[in-house]
Amino acid sequence: MIVVIGGGPAGRFAAARLAQAGREVVLVEREAIGGQCLNSGCMQVCALNDAARTMERAGEFAAAGVLDGVPHLAFPALLREMGAVQRTIRGVLDRETRAAGVEVRYGATARVEGRKVFIDDEEVETEAVVIATGSRPAVPPLPGTDLSGVYTARTLRTMPGLPAHLVIAGGGVSAVEFAYIFSRLGSQVTLLARRNLLGGLDPGLRRLARKELAGVEVREHAPLTRIVGTTRVEGARYGGEASGECDADAVLLAVGLVPQTSMVTGVEKGPHGEIIVDDQMQTSVPGVYAAGDAAGPPYLTPLARLQGVVAAENILGHEMKYAPRAVPQAIALANDLAFCVEDGDDDEIALSLPAPAGPGSFWSVPKGDTGMGKILVDPETGVLRGVWAASPGAGITATYLAEAMRRKMTVFDLEDLIEVHPLADGVHGLFAQAARLIREREADNKPPESGPGTR
Amino acid sequence: MIVVIGGGPAGRFAAARLAQAGREVVLVEREAIGGQCLNSGCMQVCALNDAARTMERAGEFAAAGVLDGVPHLAFPALLREMGAVQRTIRGVLDRETRAAGVEVRYGATARVEGRKVFIDDEEVETEAVVIATGSRPAVPPLPGTDLSGVYTARTLRTMPGLPAHLVIAGGGVSAVEFAYIFSRLGSQVTLLARRNLLGGLDPGLRRLARKELAGVEVREHAPLTRIVGTTRVEGARYGGEASGECDADAVLLAVGLVPQTSMVTGVEKGPHGEIIVDDQMQTSVPGVYAAGDAAGPPYLTPLARLQGVVAAENILGHEMKYAPRAVPQAIALANDLAFCVEDGDDDEIALSLPAPAGPGSFWSVPKGDTGMGKILVDPETGVLRGVWAASPGAGITATYLAEAMRRKMTVFDLEDLIEVHPLADGVHGLFAQAARLIREREADNKPPESGPGTR
Repeated sequence: MIVVIGGGPAGRFAAARLAQAGREVVLVEREAIGGQCLNSGCMQVCALNDAARTMERAGEFAAAGVLDGVPHLAFPALLREMGAVQRTIRGVLDRETRAAGVEVRYGATARVEGRKVFIDDEEVETEAVVIATGSRPAVPPLPGTDLSGVYTARTLRTMPGLPAHLVIAGGGVSAVEFAYIFSRLGSQVTLLARRNLLGGLDPGLRRLARKELAGVEVREHAPLTRIVGTTRVEGARYGGEASGECDADAVLLAVGLVPQTSMVTGVEKGPHGEIIVDDQMQTSVPGVYAAGDAAGPPYLTPLARLQGVVAAENILGHEMKYAPRAVPQAIALANDLAFCVEDGDDDEIALSLPAPAGPGSFWSVPKGDTGMGKILVDPETGVLRGVWAASPGAGITATYLAEAMRRKMTVFDLEDLIEVHPLADGVHGLFAQAARLIREREADNKPPESGPGTR
Repeated sequence: MIVVIGGGPAGRFAAARLAQAGREVVLVEREAIGGQCLNSGCMQVCALNDAARTMERAGEFAAAGVLDGVPHLAFPALLREMGAVQRTIRGVLDRETRAAGVEVRYGATARVEGRKVFIDDEEVETEAVVIATGSRPAVPPLPGTDLSGVYTARTLRTMPGLPAHLVIAGGGVSAVEFAYIFSRLGSQVTLLARRNLLGGLDPGLRRLARKELAGVEVREHAPLTRIVGTTRVEGARYGGEASGECDADAVLLAVGLVPQTSMVTGVEKGPHGEIIVDDQMQTSVPGVYAAGDAAGPPYLTPLARLQGVVAAENILGHEMKYAPRAVPQAIALANDLAFCVEDGDDDEIALSLPAPAGPGSFWSVPKGDTGMGKILVDPETGVLRGVWAASPGAGITATYLAEAMRRKMTVFDLEDLIEVHPLADGVHGLFAQAARLIREREADNKPPESGPGTR
C-alpha cells in the first residue's frame, strides 16, 4: 500500500498516477478534497473576481447611461453560491479520484514519523508515502489577530456581510487580488503593504495593476503593526515612515503562506517548516516523498500537480526529475495580468504596446485601459526571454508563450502568427515588430557593401 | 505615387508598409477608416457581445439571489456609446496611419479602369494601385427587403430601439453571433438558417453553440423567402419542409458578404465580383493589386492585413507569397468558440474534455457549461492536426496552437505545458493524455520482448 496524505492538487495527482499504474493507494484527506486551490485559493479568487468584474462592468455601463442602475449585490448569497459550486467541483474531483482507482479516506488524520506512517494513530505498512499536506495563510504575531472580524483567505467565507471598510495586510498577488475584489463589490479598501506593492514585478505591469486598483487606498512601506478593538475589529495601525491608524470593521491577512507540516517529524525541514526534498521529491528519509506546498514555495497549483506526478513516477521506479522552467503566472484584476520571465542579460530588446480593443476590452477604451503586451528578446538571436500580457485571457497567452520560451523560440519563428481577430492579446503583434528591429540593426551594423569595410 | 483604395485592414496595412519603405502613398477612404472590421464587423460584434455577456451573467447572479435584479438596458444608449468608442478607435487608426507617412484622403472616391486610376474622376499617375475596397453584407433578392425594419450588420446601428421580436436570416457565424447578442439583450429571436446551423463545424462545437443559444428559436432548413409588411416589417416567411410564417418587428440579414468592386473595371473578376489575384495579390493587370475582402472569401481581418502586406512587399520588389496555413477562427457567444483544423485522414485520434472551471467559467458550473476542449492528433506521429476550444479567451488558445500546427508540433512537444492556474482552457491538459495514449498503443503493438516475436 502507498499512502498519500492530502487531497489537494499534489496529492490527487500523485495518487491518481500511482493507482493508474496498478498500485494500491490510500488518499487521506482530513477535510475537503481539492485542497487550498479549490476551497480557499485559486477558485475562490476566480469566483469572487468574476463577480467583481461583472459589478465593475455593470457600473461602467450604468455610468454611460446604458444601464439604468447597478443592482445590489448580496454578499452572503455570493458566498453561499460560491460554496455550492465548490461543493459541485469537490464531487467531480472525488469521482475522478475514485475512478482512477484511489481509495479516499475523508476525516482521517495521518502522521509521519521518519519512515513510519500512522492513520488515525494506527501504524500502517507502506511501500512509500507522499506528504502533500499543503500550506495555510500565515497569521503574523501581532496584537489583535484574535479579534472578531479578522480573516484570512481560508476563513473569508465566514464573513457575515460585506465589510464597510476592509483593511488588507499584504503587498503580494493575493493581497492585490482581494483588494480589487472587495473594492469592486463595494467595500472601502485600504491595502497595507510592508514594502512596495507587487515588488519585483515589471514596472509597466505594476503601473497597470495600480490603475486597475483605482479606488483602493494603497499604502506602501506601511506594515500592519496592530489590529485595534476590544472584541471586534475597530481599526488597524501601521508602521513605517508614515505610520498611522485607520478605521476598519474587518481585516484580511494576506501576507503569505506557510507549509502545513506539523504532522510530520523525523524528516528534514527548512526554516518555515517546508519539507526538504531532492529533485525526485524524496525527503531525507528514503521512501518518504513530499509534494506541493508542503515542500515550500512557489505555491502554484500546476507545479504542485507536477511535483505529485514526479513523486509518483519515482515511486514507480521511473526516474523523473522536477526541474520546471519558464513558469507563467498571473494576477486576476479587471484584466488578467500574466507574465513569464527568464533570467537574462540587461541588453535585451524590450518592446511593449497597449493591448488592442477586443472581447472584454472594447468598453475599456474610453478610460484608456485595454491592457498591455510586452516582450523581452535577445538582441542577437531573437530568442524570446520574457512575456507580459494584461488583457482578458492573458493567462492563456502566457501559458503558450512560456512553452515557446522553453523551446527557445525566436521572434522570427513567431512573426507570422495569424491571430483570431479581434482577440484581446497585446502580445501577438510584437513579434513581427521585434523581428524587423533586429533585421534593421543587423543591416546597420554590416559594413557597406562597396565601402571601405570598416565598422 | 502609389494609390491604396480603402482604409480597412487590408488597405491600411498595405499603405503603412509602403510608406514605411519611403514610398509616396495616398490612401483614399470614402467613408470611415477601419473598414467593416471596426465599423460594422468584428468590433461591433465585440462591443455588443460584451454587453450581452454582462447581461447574461447579471441575470445568472440575479437568478441565484446574488443580485437583487437585472438593470434595464437602454439599447439606443448602447449603440450611441459603441459609436463613441468606434470614433475613438478611428482617431487612433487615423493617427497611426498618418504617422507611418501615409496621406489619407477622406470622402474621395476612386475608380480603377484597367491600369488607369481616377480619384474623384481625375486620372492620377501611379506606380501601382492596391484595391482594398472590402465587402458589404449581402441582401438577398427577396420581397420585402426594402421595408422599414430590415437591417444588415452595416445598418444595425440605426435601429431606433431593441426589437421585441427579431428574425435573423442566416446560419453562419455572423447570424449566430447576432442571435446570441439580441437574445441576451432582451429580444425574442428567431433564427432562420437555409441549411444546418454552423454546418461544417465540429458536431461537439455545434452542440455547444446550440446550448449557448438557449432561448433562441432556431429553424434549420428554413430559408427566409419573404419579409411581410406594408411599410414596416410585420413578419417573415420561410420555406423548406416546415415552411411557415412568424411575427417580427425587425429582420436582420446575415446571409453572407459580397465583394464591393463596382468601381473597378478592366480587371478580371469572379462570379461574385471578387477580384481575381495571384499569390502575390496581383490582379490580371500588372501593377494593379487587390487585397482583403475585395479579393473574395474567407473575409477575415488577419488575412486581409496579411494580403495588404503581401501586396505592398511585392510592389516594393520583395517577392512574397500569400499562402496562409492553419488559420484559426472563432465564434463569440457566451464563450469564445475557437477552432483551427487542417485537412487530415480519418483515422486520427480525437480527444475532448469539458473545460475546467476558471475565470469567466466558474459561475457556469451549475448549468454544466464551462466550455470544452478538443484536439485531433495523428496517431502515428502525434502531430497536432486540429484544435477546438470553447471558453473565455479560447481565441488566444487557437492563435497559439495554430502556430504549433504550422510547425508540425506533436503532443509529445506539448505534454509538459505548465498552465497559469486556473485559466479556462480545456485544451492544455489534453496533450499529455494523447501522448500517453499513443505510447500505450505503441507498447501494445510491440512484440513481447521475450515472446515468440509474432504480432
